[in-house]
Amino acid sequence: MTSVFKYDHPFLLESGVTLPGYHLAYTTHGQLNETKDNAVWIFHALTANSDPVEWWEGLTGDGKLFDPAKYFIVCVNMPGSCYGSLGPLDENPTDHEQYFHKFPFFTTRDMIRAYQPLRLSLGIEKIQIGIGGSMGGQQLLEWTIEEPELFEYIFPLATNAFHSPWGIAFNASQRFCIETDASWKEKNEKAGSEGMKVARSLALLSYRHYETYRNTQSEESVNKYEDFKSESYQRYQGEKLEKRFNAFSYYFLSKSMDSHNVGRDRGSAEAALAKIKAKTLVIGITTDILFPLNEQQFIASSVQGAQFRSIHSSYGHDGFLLEYEKIKNIIADFLKRKSSEEFHKKQITISN
Amino acid sequence: MTSVFKYDHPFLLESGVTLPGYHLAYTTHGQLNETKDNAVWIFHALTANSDPVEWWEGLTGDGKLFDPAKYFIVCVNMPGSCYGSLGPLDENPTDHEQYFHKFPFFTTRDMIRAYQPLRLSLGIEKIQIGIGGSMGGQQLLEWTIEEPELFEYIFPLATNAFHSPWGIAFNASQRFCIETDASWKEKNEKAGSEGMKVARSLALLSYRHYETYRNTQSEESVNKYEDFKSESYQRYQGEKLEKRFNAFSYYFLSKSMDSHNVGRDRGSAEAALAKIKAKTLVIGITTDILFPLNEQQFIASSVQGAQFRSIHSSYGHDGFLLEYEKIKNIIADFLKRKSSEEFHKKQITISN
Repeated sequence: MTSVFKYDHPFLLESGVTLPGYHLAYTTHGQLNETKDNAVWIFHALTANSDPVEWWEGLTGDGKLFDPAKYFIVCVNMPGSCYGSLGPLDENPTDHEQYFHKFPFFTTRDMIRAYQPLRLSLGIEKIQIGIGGSMGGQQLLEWTIEEPELFEYIFPLATNAFHSPWGIAFNASQRFCIETDASWKEKNEKAGSEGMKVARSLALLSYRHYETYRNTQSEESVNKYEDFKSESYQRYQGEKLEKRFNAFSYYFLSKSMDSHNVGRDRGSAEAALAKIKAKTLVIGITTDILFPLNEQQFIASSVQGAQFRSIHSSYGHDGFLLEYEKIKNIIADFLKRKSSEEFHKKQITISN
Repeated sequence: MTSVFKYDHPFLLESGVTLPGYHLAYTTHGQLNETKDNAVWIFHALTANSDPVEWWEGLTGDGKLFDPAKYFIVCVNMPGSCYGSLGPLDENPTDHEQYFHKFPFFTTRDMIRAYQPLRLSLGIEKIQIGIGGSMGGQQLLEWTIEEPELFEYIFPLATNAFHSPWGIAFNASQRFCIETDASWKEKNEKAGSEGMKVARSLALLSYRHYETYRNTQSEESVNKYEDFKSESYQRYQGEKLEKRFNAFSYYFLSKSMDSHNVGRDRGSAEAALAKIKAKTLVIGITTDILFPLNEQQFIASSVQGAQFRSIHSSYGHDGFLLEYEKIKNIIADFLKRKSSEEFHKKQITISN
C-alpha cells in the first residue's frame, strides 16, 4: 500500500533553508505487531521508488526474507525523487511556481530527519531491521547515528560513510551531462532529459565493471569496425531511464548523494559511526568500483561489534540489486547467529 | 623537427572510402644512421601530438632512454587528430568544404597503413624499437602484425589487441556527451566543444581510479555538503582540453579506438598476434581500469616469446604517461638482457 505522509510544520534543511512543510510517499507491506517492534525499514537507492516488492523482489514479498506475514515493511521515497515525495516538480509555496532549478536539495541527513515524524505517525517504536544499498545505505547509516536506540539490526550494503571524491567526480560528470543539454535552462518537466540519458550511460559504467561488459556485450564476430553492441546498450539504458525518471530529480539527488558525510558536524566519520548501537553487518561486493570494499571495511571497523562480509558478483555495484540469494543467505545467517547468542545470554542470566 | 608528409595517391580505408590522398604531421629527433636501423617509432595516444619530447619528456630527449644522440626518433600525428595530420577540419577535395561530421574515420589499421609510405620516404629499413601506450600501442600492434619483419623490439604499453566492450561503452558515452551539445549540429570549428568538456571529464574517470581521487581530491574538512574539490577538478580538466583540442577530432578518434581489433579479417586476435616476430615486452599497469592487466597478459600469451611485466601506479591508466622511471627501468633491462642473449648466441655460433 502506497500512501502520502504530510508534514505541515517548518522543516530546517542543513543548507539553512526552512521549508514550510513536505510530503513523503511511502509504501508498507504487512502489519505492525502489538509490541510495535517488527518493522523492517528498507531504504531505496538513486532512481528507485518506495516499493521494494517492485525493485527488490528477490528479498521482499510473500515467502521472501522480508515477508509481510512476519514483518511490517516500510520504504519511503527519497525527497527530491519523482516518485511521490516532495521534489523539484512540486510547487514552491512561497512563489506558487514549480521549484525546478531552485529545488532546495536534501542532504542524506535531511532525508532521514524528514522520515522521523513519519515513523512516529506509523506508531513504530523500534525498527527491528534497517537495510539499504548504495544511497539507501547512506541514509540508513545517518539515521542509525541520529537515533542510536532505534534500530536493532542494520545491514548497510555496498555503501559508504561519506561519499568519495571518486563518487563525487562520477556524479559531477553526470550533472555536467545534464547541464550541457540546452533544454536544461528551460522551466518544464522535460528540461534536461537528453542530458539525463547520457548521465545514465555514464552512471552505468560505475555500476558495472570491465567483466560485466565482457560477459554481456562482447561481439560474436571479430570483423566489425563500428556499430558495436555495447554502444547500443549504453544508448538503450539512457532511453529506458528517461521514460521513467526526471532530470531535475536526477540532478538534485546526485547532489544529495555527494552531500553524504556522517562525520559532518560530528568531528569525524569514525566518531559518528562509533555512536551506532545496532547489531551491524556491513556487506560489500568484491567487484564494486563505485563503492569499493575498503568503504564497507571502514564502516565495519568503526562500528562497535560490527561484522563485515563480502559477496562476489559479476555485476559490480549493481550486484546489490541482483544477488538475492547471496544477500539473503548472509543476512539470514547473521540474524540466526545473533538470536542464538541472545538466547544463550538469556539462559546464562536465568541460570545465574 | 616537425614536418608534413604528403601522399598524393588514392588511399583505401577499411570502410571502403577511397581518399584521393592524405597528409601526416610528424616529428623527428636525431639522425638515421648509415645502416638505417636506429629508428625508434613512438605512437601517441588519443589527444597528444607528434612530439614525444613534449608529452613523454621523461622518456624522450637528450640523455633520456630514447636519446636523439643514439636513435632516430619518429612520431606521427594520428590521422583524425587536430595536430597537423589529415583531420575533420581539413577540406574535402571532392566538395571543397571542410569535412566536419563527414570525416571518413581511420581505423587503427588504416592509420598504420598511412604511415608506411612515410617510413619508406624517411629511408627507414628496420625500426629498432616501436613503442606506444593506450591507442598508441593499438597502432603499434597493428603495424607489427602487418609487417612482421619491420620491428626488432616492441613495447606495447597499457594497451589491447581489440578494444573491449567496456572501453567502447566509455567512448560511446563520451560521443553521446558531444552529441548532446546543441552546437554539435553546426558546421564550425567550435561545434560540440561544450560536449567535449564533459566527455573529457568522463574520460578522466577511466584514466584514473578510486585511489587516485582519494589521494588528490579529498577534502580537508568533513563539514562540507557541496562545492567539492573533485567536482571543480572534473570541470577544470574539461576546460583545459577544450583550449587545445577539437571536438570533431575527439569524436572520430574515439571511433578509431573502438575500431581496433587486430583479429579483423585475420581469423582471430590470437592468430593475428601469432604473426608478430619482434622481440616483445608487454607492459601493463596494475591499477588500470580501462585497459586492465588481463589485456596485456593476453597479448603476451599470444605473441611468440613475448614477456609481460606490470608496474604499479597510483594513477591508473594515466600511469603510462607518468611512471617514467618504472617504464624506463624495465625497458632498459629488457633491451640489455636481449642484447646479452644475442651476444651469447653469436658466441656459440662462432665457437661451433
